[in-house]
Amino acid sequence: MLAEERRSQICLGLDPDPAGLGDSITDWVDGSPAEAAGAAVSAHCRRIIDLAGPSCIAVKPQLACFERLGWPGWRALEEVCEAAREAGLLVVADGKRGDVPVSAKAYGQAMVGVTDSPFGPVDGLGADAFTANPLLGEDALEPMVAAAEAAGAGVFSLVRTSNPGAADVEDLPTQDGPVHEQLARMVDRFGDRLGGRESRLSGMGAVVGATAPEHIARLRELMPRAMFLIPGVGAQGGRPEDLGAAFVAGRAGAMVAASRSIAGADDPAAAAEELRAAVWAVSG
Amino acid sequence: MLAEERRSQICLGLDPDPAGLGDSITDWVDGSPAEAAGAAVSAHCRRIIDLAGPSCIAVKPQLACFERLGWPGWRALEEVCEAAREAGLLVVADGKRGDVPVSAKAYGQAMVGVTDSPFGPVDGLGADAFTANPLLGEDALEPMVAAAEAAGAGVFSLVRTSNPGAADVEDLPTQDGPVHEQLARMVDRFGDRLGGRESRLSGMGAVVGATAPEHIARLRELMPRAMFLIPGVGAQGGRPEDLGAAFVAGRAGAMVAASRSIAGADDPAAAAEELRAAVWAVSG
Repeated sequence: MLAEERRSQICLGLDPDPAGLGDSITDWVDGSPAEAAGAAVSAHCRRIIDLAGPSCIAVKPQLACFERLGWPGWRALEEVCEAAREAGLLVVADGKRGDVPVSAKAYGQAMVGVTDSPFGPVDGLGADAFTANPLLGEDALEPMVAAAEAAGAGVFSLVRTSNPGAADVEDLPTQDGPVHEQLARMVDRFGDRLGGRESRLSGMGAVVGATAPEHIARLRELMPRAMFLIPGVGAQGGRPEDLGAAFVAGRAGAMVAASRSIAGADDPAAAAEELRAAVWAVSG
Repeated sequence: MLAEERRSQICLGLDPDPAGLGDSITDWVDGSPAEAAGAAVSAHCRRIIDLAGPSCIAVKPQLACFERLGWPGWRALEEVCEAAREAGLLVVADGKRGDVPVSAKAYGQAMVGVTDSPFGPVDGLGADAFTANPLLGEDALEPMVAAAEAAGAGVFSLVRTSNPGAADVEDLPTQDGPVHEQLARMVDRFGDRLGGRESRLSGMGAVVGATAPEHIARLRELMPRAMFLIPGVGAQGGRPEDLGAAFVAGRAGAMVAASRSIAGADDPAAAAEELRAAVWAVSG
């Protein structure tokens, strides 16, 4: 398992904001504002990967941050995914897509590639895993799971997110527990589809925020095989020491995502290494 | 109101699939497979706009279908949005985005533009409205609503989608009705923010599928001011004659989206015109 090899469960979030990259403007920047910003965003992310990558097992580009720059942003995203692969890191494409089945199929293709185009195969982002939004139900998740299955990739369905407003819908009480527990059961039903070859863990995973750690043990019960992707540590207030229950499934049972607390640190390498050690300590 | 002027409430869905465009391959196609497919997708959509546009008030590009072609797909998307504007049509960018607040802000920027980039302003898609996924709650919708407000655009939040699996989560019973009614209340709470200048209607709208018309009257009660975006007519089985309750709010109270039933017709112009007349007849 990669987690054991690298003694890390850290997923490096990449949420580049051009507003903070003005220092990188030089005389030789050309092209449109979007192209110039796209180039700066690409260079910034590749620098963070170089610095912090050695303490991580994966990167998690936030698609929103690239899309806001239009096609040059999407080109930067492709460059960043490629740089992460070259650095030996997994790519978790964080787009939280969800749509009716025919469109969900296209979102799956965006993540792992199009094979049936008469113009020749298109690679997509080559994601090792991607996030998905389950609001539209099982038939809408299905084509994204199928795309992941065909590509040997994983899916992280939203279950309980890390923002304060998550309670509005995800915590609404139903007859069988809050909505997020129903989402967890849906994730578990897909567990056989992306079954791990090397372990009992499934590549059908769940996004479970670190900011409401009181849910983690219960969600681990409902999804005993799922990989957890845990955002919300650091800038959002979540703490590694509250995440032990996620690792009941083993050291590879969860990835902890951190973005601003690493990329925004004075020393991103040291910040990543500190978080790596803290999470490793609670995972064993 | 544009609906009155054009006597139309039809929103032309653009869901291009490169798999069906092999006939457009010519000797002079160059570039990568993604670039060639992107050019074909752009030409196809512009052709459909030319043919069917006169019977419509808006286009609704499905972002998934463009994204699957990577950056050339996103460039095609920008070309198609521009072509629609030139044809006098509104652009409803259908991406169904949803994320924690800091990322939701970036999604809003992707739709209507980035103004605070030190590299210069970036236009985004220049959308007149865009779809959003409300699973993450009010604080996650807020930045997208704020972006729309600043740009004079509208938002269509998912409330009850048109796919069979919609029942899995959106129809889960809670103490105050099914989940989709709770989503409807959330939409209504944002209604003042995108208040219409010319009418009592709000630009804070809702996606309500035509495939479950039994919900439409109740959802109109809960969201008296919201514009409805109604997919699911045609290929998915919804019928114009079942949509009357949506137009209680006036002729501009809803847009009916159709994709495959127009773009896939032998005569897209006639198919669009037939649907226009059928919807206009039930809206008065």
